[in-house]
Order: sequence, then structure tokens, then C-alpha cells
Amino acid sequence: MTDKAEVTPWEVSSDLQETDYSRIASQFGAKLIDDKILSDIKELTGEIHPFLHYGIFFAHRDLDIILENYRKGEPFYLYTGRGPSGNMHLGHLLPFMFTKWLQEKFNVDLLIQITDDEKYLFRDIPESEIRTITRNNILDILSLGFNPEKTHIIVDSEQAGILYNQAVRVSRHITASTAKAVFGFTDSDSIGKYFFTSIQAVPAFLLSALSGRNIRCLIPYAIDQDPHFKVARDVIPKLGYEKPSSIISKFIPSLKGGGKMSSSDLNSGIYLDDSPKVVRKKLMKYAFSGGKETAEEQRKYGANPDIDFAFNIYRMLEHDQNKVEGIYAKYKGGEILSGEMKQLSADTISAFLETLGPARQQAERNYSEYMFNADDFRDRY
Amino acid sequence: MTDKAEVTPWEVSSDLQETDYSRIASQFGAKLIDDKILSDIKELTGEIHPFLHYGIFFAHRDLDIILENYRKGEPFYLYTGRGPSGNMHLGHLLPFMFTKWLQEKFNVDLLIQITDDEKYLFRDIPESEIRTITRNNILDILSLGFNPEKTHIIVDSEQAGILYNQAVRVSRHITASTAKAVFGFTDSDSIGKYFFTSIQAVPAFLLSALSGRNIRCLIPYAIDQDPHFKVARDVIPKLGYEKPSSIISKFIPSLKGGGKMSSSDLNSGIYLDDSPKVVRKKLMKYAFSGGKETAEEQRKYGANPDIDFAFNIYRMLEHDQNKVEGIYAKYKGGEILSGEMKQLSADTISAFLETLGPARQQAERNYSEYMFNADDFRDRY
Repeated sequence: MTDKAEVTPWEVSSDLQETDYSRIASQFGAKLIDDKILSDIKELTGEIHPFLHYGIFFAHRDLDIILENYRKGEPFYLYTGRGPSGNMHLGHLLPFMFTKWLQEKFNVDLLIQITDDEKYLFRDIPESEIRTITRNNILDILSLGFNPEKTHIIVDSEQAGILYNQAVRVSRHITASTAKAVFGFTDSDSIGKYFFTSIQAVPAFLLSALSGRNIRCLIPYAIDQDPHFKVARDVIPKLGYEKPSSIISKFIPSLKGGGKMSSSDLNSGIYLDDSPKVVRKKLMKYAFSGGKETAEEQRKYGANPDIDFAFNIYRMLEHDQNKVEGIYAKYKGGEILSGEMKQLSADTISAFLETLGPARQQAERNYSEYMFNADDFRDRY
Repeated sequence: MTDKAEVTPWEVSSDLQETDYSRIASQFGAKLIDDKILSDIKELTGEIHPFLHYGIFFAHRDLDIILENYRKGEPFYLYTGRGPSGNMHLGHLLPFMFTKWLQEKFNVDLLIQITDDEKYLFRDIPESEIRTITRNNILDILSLGFNPEKTHIIVDSEQAGILYNQAVRVSRHITASTAKAVFGFTDSDSIGKYFFTSIQAVPAFLLSALSGRNIRCLIPYAIDQDPHFKVARDVIPKLGYEKPSSIISKFIPSLKGGGKMSSSDLNSGIYLDDSPKVVRKKLMKYAFSGGKETAEEQRKYGANPDIDFAFNIYRMLEHDQNKVEGIYAKYKGGEILSGEMKQLSADTISAFLETLGPARQQAERNYSEYMFNADDFRDRY
């Protein structure tokens, strides 16, 4: 645990613990998700998604307003995104599972922004590679089986016209000073970096701008993206649209522990096309364990499942909550050894990865159906 | 005359005199147009345009390279622009006359960028007004009778997709620090302002980017735009294209004297739809005169035609150079009075304005033919 856990979209300085998350949420001005919110969600959707139950999505801004208005029959839409910097890890995909659940339960449109321009501006990825990465990332996301009628993928470079015209309106209300304070930029950073947050803000009001009706937007994102949407919430009302709401997750733990799964370290995560053998090997060799050093100690003192990679991924993929609770108790109590936990997790992960293939192939065939088309929204709401 | 004549695209601090222009050109790192350049132009085009003869276009960067390569049969294209902040004055139109001459003499494509986004970012003009102003400004420019086959108007908001995708590439190579130094921005300026120069840089390499061939670009502009193109010249070679060349004008004198004609003061210039009566009245009442206070003094000491608004506009519109030289001598020698000079100038202006009507009407009918279309350039060179 560190004193200053610095979190920006491009830098996460340390292992974040439970207490850090609460502190960061309150520093950022977000609220923790409380029992009232949970019971409202349960009332409206019939269930509490495990990611909520386990506190993976743990904070929000104005989610209560979204729920209250939804109850009255007011529509909203979802917006989330991905910066295509490399092949997707399991950890990158999991938040999309939750978003898909929201989409299905509330039966709403979902915009997914793929920020290929961001990756060009912030990383040294050649333009040619970004194209391939972008397409692969999109297929990976779609392998979860999104509904093409209600899922609209915005690739920044392909929708640059709409995005820039709206981003200009946003950019007018953000000073360089704000960008420095919020993103930690200095005068040595490029003007492209400074401008970029305006582009990321656009999908948060785009359906209102296109339809001429004021439709609320709910943005699920990991906490490192909060600076973008904190700024967006300040600016968007100045353009005459509703402030977007958000639902905020912790980082999905990385294989080796630490703040955020990285695309740059090949062994920092599980790829979606890793074979069961590779998955098992990665877990056995690299997975950060909450278990004790020796089997003997583990039997005696038990593990700390909360910080254990294998357990954390297992509980996100195992739908049967009773089963998960059973494993938790046994692992914590020393009945299950670290290696056994890893094996169970590896099996669960591989079974999950196997389910992705068919939808991915389907998406490859219907790729264009998923692409955002502004004309779809002129009279949609 | 001032010691520090600050010149940025949005601020011109003072009356600029001949010596200021030389100093600014050398500060900016541009070269003065010398006899060698003039004789090369004469050799290639058969004449020296009056704006060159009178030193209105007075400086350049790498114009010699354009001319040398043109002689060898290498194509180039022209790029100029206009920020649509209000109705166009005569002083705004005159540089386009020169650009048209270049286009015709060298038989080349011309891109005209209309920076409606800039005006939204830098001025408090409502979006709705910018649309009307933009269309009127375009028609005013086209009233000079440009060739629709070779004239391509880029309205930023309409070509935002192409512009943003290319501008991202530019923006990556410009730091906030550079933008501050070159444009005088502070941390209180918006990130839209910071980014904007990337958008203005794009047409300077766009035909190369679209055609896949490296085509040189020559940019005629007034000296206040130099900061943009100084930066653009640094960045564009990093993207793999030729540095753009430029040919740089002084400010067209404003009616009341001073650095730059303004769109915000109704009486600071002559509108293209001013009647002969209004033109005459504006000249008589407001035009900055190089003549003496009284007729008697004028007869005795003569005028200073070089700083005289009426004379300056007259010589830009009167094609017969011998006639202009005669008037110059007589006005300077005291044979012509200030009021007579104004009357002659008013008549010449009104005759010129009358020629604009037919081409403007024609342009109104063929408006879309003039609009930039990226597909035109895929195999053009």
C-alpha cells in the first residue's frame, strides 16, 4: 500500500488496496455504491450482478438519477470504450461482460468507443499496427455475443468527422490548466494529448446531439478513466446536454498482482486465444497468490483469497455464487491449497474462453453491422 | 512605429511600417522577395503581378525551390484560407486576387480552407451564425471567378474526418510549450486553441497524403499567419512529406489605417456589397489619408501616397501600371488633392465591385462543384 496512489488514464503507480479505492473515489468526488443502489438495481433487473456483489464495480456518479428516471420510463444509453494498444487480456474483457449485462437488463443502446487515435498519440505504436490491433480488439469484445441491433462501435479514426466537430465544442470549455491538473500533463506533452479528452467526451452526449433529444448516458469504466469523465461532466451541461452518469470499477487484478493488466508484458495476463495448457502454465507460474509459502502453512493458516489472482478471476467467471462462497471459505480456511485453487481457476477460465469462439466468428461475418452509423440515431429516441 | 510589433494570427499590435515588415520577416526566418525571384517569376509567367511589383507580397520561404522544380516539370499546388468571422471586406478579398493569378499562371490546383472551427474556438460567434457567414464568405471569394475544376474549398466542419485524422499525426509532434511560444497562449487558453494549428497544417500536405505522391505546396498568406506555417514546416517533413513553401504578404491597409482590416468594426472597411454612394462616403469620411491637412499645404508639400488608403487600394485595382505611376507622381507632387484621390479610388473600387456580381451568382448555382472532394485526388497526380 502506498501513500500516494496516482491514477491517470496512462499511469497507475502502485498496487491498489481496498482502502485506496475508497479514498480515490472520494478524492475524485465519486460515491461508493451502497445498499440503496444495489436494492434499486435488484428491483429493476431482478438480480445483482456478481461484479456488483463482489464490489468490483464499487463507485458511481449519479447512477441513482439514471435508475430513478429509468423507473419513470425515461430511456438512457450506455457508453464504454477501449484503447487498442495490443491483444486483449481476459482482464480487459471482463468489464465488457458487466456492460453487456447492463445492456441486456435495461434493454438499451450501447456505444463502444475504440480510441485508436489515443494510442497513436500516447504510445509509440505505428499507424499500420493500430489498424490490425483495432480490428482484433473489436472482435474480442464482440466475442461476448453483443446484440448488433443495440451495440454501436465507434472507431475514432472512422468517425473522425462527427467526433471532431463535437469535440471542438467540448474543447472550447477546457483550459490547458485543467488538462494539466487532471491528467498530469506538462508543457512538454503534445497538443494532441491535450486535445484528446475532448474526443473521449463526445460519445457521452452524442446520442443527444444526433437525436435532438436529451438522453441520459451511463458510462461503465475502470477508475483510471475517471479524470476524463470528471472533466466531461463539467463541460457537457455547458453544451446543453445532461451530465453523464458513471459506474466505476476497480482494476481487474493483473496476473502478477499490481494495479492494471498491461498489454505490453506477454506474461502479465491471459490472452483470449491461450490454450488450456498455456492458461494453466501461466496461472501456475505467474499468478499472484494469496496462499501461504508452503502447503503446511496453508493448511494451518489458510489463504487470503481477496488478493489471490486465481480466486478473483474464478469468482468473476463462476455464475453460481454459492459455489464461489464455498470455495472462498475453504481456501481461506486452508482446506484448498494454492495449486488447487489455480487449477480450478484455470479450468474455469479455459471453459469460458472456449465459449467465445462462436460469437467471434459470427462477429467477423457481421462486422459492419456493429459499426456506428450516425443515421441510425436521427429518429431513434 | 513601435518597437515591438507583436504579430500572431489573432493579434496585431500596431501600425506596421516598411521597416517593421523587414524586421518581422527576418525574425520569423522568412526571406525577402528579391530581384532573382521576381525575374524567375517573370520568366515563368510572362509578367510580374502588381502585388509583387508593389511589394505587397514581400517575403517567402522556399519559393525558389517551387519555381526551380516547376521549371523542371514538377507539379505543385496552392493552399490558402480564410477564417469566417464576419462579412468580407475588400481588404480580405484582395489576397485572393493574387492567389487566383498564381493559380492561372501556373495552372495548378488550389485548396482554400475555411476555418469555421477556428472562429468558434477563438471568437464568441454562435455556431448558427458561423454557418451563414461561412457560406457568404465562400461566395465572396468565388466572386473573383475561380475555376471550379481546380479550386477546392475545404470547410473544416464539413471535412472534419479527413482533417482530424491527419491533424492527429501533426499534433503528436507539437508540444504545448511550442504552441505557447509561437502563438502566445497561456495555461488559461482552451485545449481547442492549442490543437487548432494542427488542423490548419493539414491542407499543406493533404494532396500528398491523399495521392501517395509527394507534391509540393505553396501557401500565399498574410504575415499574421506565419506562426502556423512556421510550425507546419517543422512538422510536415516528420510525416514524410515535403516542407510547404510560402509567399507572404503585408496586411492590406485598413480604411482607417492600422495593421489589419477588422470584421468587427462596420466602418473599418469596404464591404463587397457597398453601393458606389456608400463606398464614396466611407472613403471621404474615414479613409486614412497621406495628404496634408489643407488644400494649400497639399499643393505646396504634396502627399505621402504610400500610407494613403485610397491610393493603396487604387493601385491594387488599376491594372495599368503607367497610369498608377502617373497618379503616384501627381499625388506626391501636390497636383492631386486628397479628395480627388479618394474620388478616383472610390470610382475604381465601385467599378471593381460591380464585376463581382456575375461570378458570385454563377458560384451560387455551382456551389457544390467547388467543394473539396477527397476522391478527386486519389489518382490526380
